[in-house]
Amino acid sequence: MNSPKVLLVGGTHGNEINAPWVLDNWTYKPSLQDQSTVRLVKVLGNPAAYKAGKRYLDRDLNRSFRKDLLSDYSSKDYEVGRARELLRGFGEGGLNPCKLVLDLHSTTSSMGSCLVVYGRRPCDLALAALIQFRLGVNIYLHEGDFSQQGFLVESWPCGLVVEVGPVPQNLLEISIVRKTSLILEAALEEISKVLVEKDIYPKSIVVHRHLGSLDLPRDDEGRPIACLHPELQNQDWSPIKRGTPMFLYPNGEVDRFDEKGYVVPVFINEAAYAEKRISMSLTKREVWPFEKQWKEDFRSFVRSQ
Amino acid sequence: MNSPKVLLVGGTHGNEINAPWVLDNWTYKPSLQDQSTVRLVKVLGNPAAYKAGKRYLDRDLNRSFRKDLLSDYSSKDYEVGRARELLRGFGEGGLNPCKLVLDLHSTTSSMGSCLVVYGRRPCDLALAALIQFRLGVNIYLHEGDFSQQGFLVESWPCGLVVEVGPVPQNLLEISIVRKTSLILEAALEEISKVLVEKDIYPKSIVVHRHLGSLDLPRDDEGRPIACLHPELQNQDWSPIKRGTPMFLYPNGEVDRFDEKGYVVPVFINEAAYAEKRISMSLTKREVWPFEKQWKEDFRSFVRSQ
Repeated sequence: MNSPKVLLVGGTHGNEINAPWVLDNWTYKPSLQDQSTVRLVKVLGNPAAYKAGKRYLDRDLNRSFRKDLLSDYSSKDYEVGRARELLRGFGEGGLNPCKLVLDLHSTTSSMGSCLVVYGRRPCDLALAALIQFRLGVNIYLHEGDFSQQGFLVESWPCGLVVEVGPVPQNLLEISIVRKTSLILEAALEEISKVLVEKDIYPKSIVVHRHLGSLDLPRDDEGRPIACLHPELQNQDWSPIKRGTPMFLYPNGEVDRFDEKGYVVPVFINEAAYAEKRISMSLTKREVWPFEKQWKEDFRSFVRSQ
Repeated sequence: MNSPKVLLVGGTHGNEINAPWVLDNWTYKPSLQDQSTVRLVKVLGNPAAYKAGKRYLDRDLNRSFRKDLLSDYSSKDYEVGRARELLRGFGEGGLNPCKLVLDLHSTTSSMGSCLVVYGRRPCDLALAALIQFRLGVNIYLHEGDFSQQGFLVESWPCGLVVEVGPVPQNLLEISIVRKTSLILEAALEEISKVLVEKDIYPKSIVVHRHLGSLDLPRDDEGRPIACLHPELQNQDWSPIKRGTPMFLYPNGEVDRFDEKGYVVPVFINEAAYAEKRISMSLTKREVWPFEKQWKEDFRSFVRSQ
């Protein structure tokens, strides 16, 4: 059986420097006896932004894998060209085609270690379930948000984002490196197990389904007039309900959450999202039965030539 | 008596956004009964970098107040021009001359709230002593480092840097805002007390005197080959001694501190200092008797026309 090639991307955002360090310095030592392990292809997502110590040069690379952008050859944005380059290099029809992609990110939010799944592709869900079953990490299901489109992993037939935080931008912190490596190793071993038919799936998965994002209160000219309430800082994954303080005005006034039921905030006060006018995203925690079809699709996908 | 004008600078580094928020949203409410309080002039240090969400555009503004740079009119660096602008505006001989400057910064390092004093000017030491006596904050005495010159506060007859951390770059966090405001209010009230002759000085001050800075281990091409040891992360102000783990190599090897006695690390793994090749600075903790001359100089300085 041909073992699948897995693309590992670090530095899709140039100021998230822990994943590139992982890819430069970490060697995968499979713990399985089996020889038919996955093959790895490592790539620095946005080398120009990485060199500049910035998230991106012209536009967010991880919002640039949109069909309209990729086919717009009048675009001079560096990241649109880079997205094409990555697809030509490592996409399904590329020179060195990779089946699966793991896109390794970090965040200034207190997200711990988690996976982000874009939409409900069976193979993504199967892989996320395997990793969650093994490590207990949260899964953030991003879907149905028309203001946020064109994520890298969506351009491969199967792919997940790994998010680890909190860590400031441009800061190398070994605890983040280790958490990233741990997820990476778990993912690769689980994929290897599929090859040798030792993959075991959970009965259910817990997902945090994206509902939408909240902006800070702003004045008529778009300037923020309140900041995140201190009680919410670092409270990613903790449910909020009616009455939870959300935003604090300089005069001491407080905006409180004013809807029924519970929602779970993620990416609270992520530094890079200020420009996207996102002070946090809200999710609903759901327990889904693991569907047999996901497993079947993932098995035949991983084992196919 | 003419009350002195104090210049408050936030955003000298454009990606340290908590101080600009303080200056925009905070109003000084003197707690003293006295009317002769200080007058405040607020300014955004580096507006272009602040807008771009970057530390600086062409060069670090807080290393640009060097005489050779300020007099070099062939320089096209935005920050050299901005330094001149700030001096023309608010310097001793400027249009709106300010006596004293407080330059408000934040850091990704776990520095807590502290003051940085550049050199041993009696007025700086007197003011730092007053604030330390009141709040107990650490004082980092930066001196004798020829690789780091041209700090903003040195261009005013008296001035301190306020550093608060940890907080990621470009992140507004209300706990940082509050710590910054607290120091600011303490400083302004202490200066006001000098005016009404209610200033009371400690018998001694504790300073952490700069010894030098350490770089990460690098290969021949200048790339870091080890990272900060996880046991040192967030250990700012905690003494290190022979045997303390300093740097961790990908293969697990560890560089340990190998000198006699104790030193105290500060600005450990500050994100902005990677480009300066500083993984931390080392200091010596010293207790100095408070000198009468500092008080006399500061009193006559604050009270002079």
